[in-house]
Amino acid sequence: MQKILAIGGSDAGISAALRAKELDPATEFTLLLSDRYPNFSICGLPFYLSGEVGDWRNLAHRTLNDIQNQGIVVLAEHVAQSIDAARKSVHIQDLNTGKSMDLNYDKLIIGTGSVSMRPSIDGVDLDGVFFLRWMADSFAFKKHLESRKPKSITIIGAGYIGMEMADAMHQLGLEVNVVEFFPSVLTTVDLPLGQLVQSELERHRIQVYTQTAVTAIERQKEKLVVRGKNGFTVDSDMVLIATGSRPETALAQTAGFELGFKGAIRVNRKMETTVSHIYAAGDCAETYHCLLGENRYLPLGTTAHKQGRIAGENALGGSREYAGSLGTQSVKIFDLVAARTGLKNDEARSEGFDPFTADFATWDHKVYYPGAKKLFFRLTGDRKTHRLLGLQIVGAYGTEVSKRIDIAAAAVYHKMQVEELNNLDLSYTPPLSSPWDPVQMAAQQWMRSL
Amino acid sequence: MQKILAIGGSDAGISAALRAKELDPATEFTLLLSDRYPNFSICGLPFYLSGEVGDWRNLAHRTLNDIQNQGIVVLAEHVAQSIDAARKSVHIQDLNTGKSMDLNYDKLIIGTGSVSMRPSIDGVDLDGVFFLRWMADSFAFKKHLESRKPKSITIIGAGYIGMEMADAMHQLGLEVNVVEFFPSVLTTVDLPLGQLVQSELERHRIQVYTQTAVTAIERQKEKLVVRGKNGFTVDSDMVLIATGSRPETALAQTAGFELGFKGAIRVNRKMETTVSHIYAAGDCAETYHCLLGENRYLPLGTTAHKQGRIAGENALGGSREYAGSLGTQSVKIFDLVAARTGLKNDEARSEGFDPFTADFATWDHKVYYPGAKKLFFRLTGDRKTHRLLGLQIVGAYGTEVSKRIDIAAAAVYHKMQVEELNNLDLSYTPPLSSPWDPVQMAAQQWMRSL
Repeated sequence: MQKILAIGGSDAGISAALRAKELDPATEFTLLLSDRYPNFSICGLPFYLSGEVGDWRNLAHRTLNDIQNQGIVVLAEHVAQSIDAARKSVHIQDLNTGKSMDLNYDKLIIGTGSVSMRPSIDGVDLDGVFFLRWMADSFAFKKHLESRKPKSITIIGAGYIGMEMADAMHQLGLEVNVVEFFPSVLTTVDLPLGQLVQSELERHRIQVYTQTAVTAIERQKEKLVVRGKNGFTVDSDMVLIATGSRPETALAQTAGFELGFKGAIRVNRKMETTVSHIYAAGDCAETYHCLLGENRYLPLGTTAHKQGRIAGENALGGSREYAGSLGTQSVKIFDLVAARTGLKNDEARSEGFDPFTADFATWDHKVYYPGAKKLFFRLTGDRKTHRLLGLQIVGAYGTEVSKRIDIAAAAVYHKMQVEELNNLDLSYTPPLSSPWDPVQMAAQQWMRSL
Repeated sequence: MQKILAIGGSDAGISAALRAKELDPATEFTLLLSDRYPNFSICGLPFYLSGEVGDWRNLAHRTLNDIQNQGIVVLAEHVAQSIDAARKSVHIQDLNTGKSMDLNYDKLIIGTGSVSMRPSIDGVDLDGVFFLRWMADSFAFKKHLESRKPKSITIIGAGYIGMEMADAMHQLGLEVNVVEFFPSVLTTVDLPLGQLVQSELERHRIQVYTQTAVTAIERQKEKLVVRGKNGFTVDSDMVLIATGSRPETALAQTAGFELGFKGAIRVNRKMETTVSHIYAAGDCAETYHCLLGENRYLPLGTTAHKQGRIAGENALGGSREYAGSLGTQSVKIFDLVAARTGLKNDEARSEGFDPFTADFATWDHKVYYPGAKKLFFRLTGDRKTHRLLGLQIVGAYGTEVSKRIDIAAAAVYHKMQVEELNNLDLSYTPPLSSPWDPVQMAAQQWMRSL
């Protein structure tokens, strides 16, 4: 009987535990949790803060009871302090009692996730300045909203969390400013599509400042002032810093294993680290990119679930390989959905491809049927091989943008050529598509433009 | 320079013409059209009759002008009467003048489509009894609605057109009866899912009579009475017969080429008939089924577009092969969407597979985010090889049912195993999906159930 210990009770750790228990209910599986909130949907935090999710407890994919009922032992509010890989033991501390102890394992799974990037500027620790990653961040933010009743917020960083929080805070009636370093919001899609998202923000009277490097945050009486280069200032009642995350690997380093891409824990496709009997999965680890055939760093919930599932299976003695990520993602911002899979043009070039990207716009369904809305595509393929490298779509909520990107995700997974997308037998009915799905029309446009 | 003649100006003929002109603008392409409505969206007729599409002209994918501007010669209201394959000529008649003539071709493309099945019962020709396939049917139906102001309708046949017309006529305020021979409506999906559709009809106070074989239609004063076995009767002001279609091959037979599956024109994957220099595409022809590797009969607009495109390319000298159909289709019925791809359990068995089918229901997106609705899946795979054979989904309009089925369509195209669906990197955001997309959760359920 295997004794498996997982450090971290978010997507990766829980997925590992569930998979191991599914395959062998006799496995002794212990999960170490630094807070009291196992398996919470981090992606759901903006919807809790907007009030769309009334009770924070609903953000849990599973309750503690659900998890324990699977026979998984959960040590809540316990942190791991170091790993002794030679003795196969982890030194842990109970946060409530302060007591320490050693836990032995046969197999160890690291799922410590990531931590918010803290820009090296003054003022990030001021009262009223927040980060958002874990439940504790979320509770602090919520408490501030309720007790201080801020009327305005400045969000630094226009990535997923920044965009969703702009939407959320607008719903609460706050005046919202967004400050972004790059020329456009949502740089996970290219500039022309990012500009569509920016227009959507501005349509809702969000103030967006792009190409703005923040230099400091200062308190001036009741206000927090965000300062940037070239004399930029904007003031508001509170500030959210959402400038991304980096892998949490402090613990991992005590065991002496290698770090890889962007400082994430180096893993192979079996999710094994460079130290025997230790696996890593989720945001703390590298991600195999199935288009590139190499590891990158792509912290996403979908990836954490898949990697965790594989770590759990292999910790039991399996030898399954992670199929890999394509960075497929989608986000709803007000009435728009932006989605992507694979590589953008510039990414493809820097990865050694010879990319060509075509823009295309068309209706989501037959325009004669009421309610048709425009979809905006950017499709990237390789000039020489015609291999499909990536797709980006922006369109209205309700136009099946997110599952349209998945058609391309399946196509890239299977190494299809752009032209071959026309071979797919996709569904059509006038209220929902066209005889050639817009994804296929984008492929045809790519062929013509090339 | 090739002289190409296409008989039929619907999806197949137009797609052939456009493709040929795209590849070689110098091609002399003539299109024979039996009415005055080229490239009309037959799938749109119910939405015209419901009033959702105000002007019937909007149902055209392209106008006559659009088509002529591509340099395509359109002979409207001309019918082909016979083909002399040895002399490579078609005998045609101008319906307006009654005059006949011969047209020569280098390559001929048959795209005559299909015709409505006419049940061999009394009363199908009565005043107030309609079929629905071409624009002329549609105009006659519309005129009847406007001049007679019927208060009720009985629809015989609960397939796609029957279901969409039940919805359309309900929108106009008519009392609607649906009579179906099989135990459930919409037999393109299995009984449990068909029953969900039936409940949706009944929720809108449509009277549904299943397992009812219609034996006659009679006029009794102001009413049309539909009679069935075991004393069944239902009366209404008008009747629509929507019991399917069969390939239109009368003309094809004059050229002496072979018919195949269900009487459709036998074609190979290059869309060549058994007679030299003659191609066939769309509803009049067989369809290569890419899962079975053999021809079947699957009359669908999507297929007609793809086959026509290939026929047009090959008529020019190309040698492209049709990738094949999976019978992927979707339909919106009131607030539901029903979709399928590949084979149902019974179809798979009769095609020689050893199928296993699992039912699964889950939310379309994270249930904590408002508006989550249930999706109902039936996933069919082969017990021995675990190959994915088909998927059916029923769910609310707006839950990305139609593009979710396309993920499975792409997977079946690539001969994936059920378990391998978990490898796909599909998009997730709480308002639109789960970390494992419901399609993947259905695959996991299939593995567990097996």
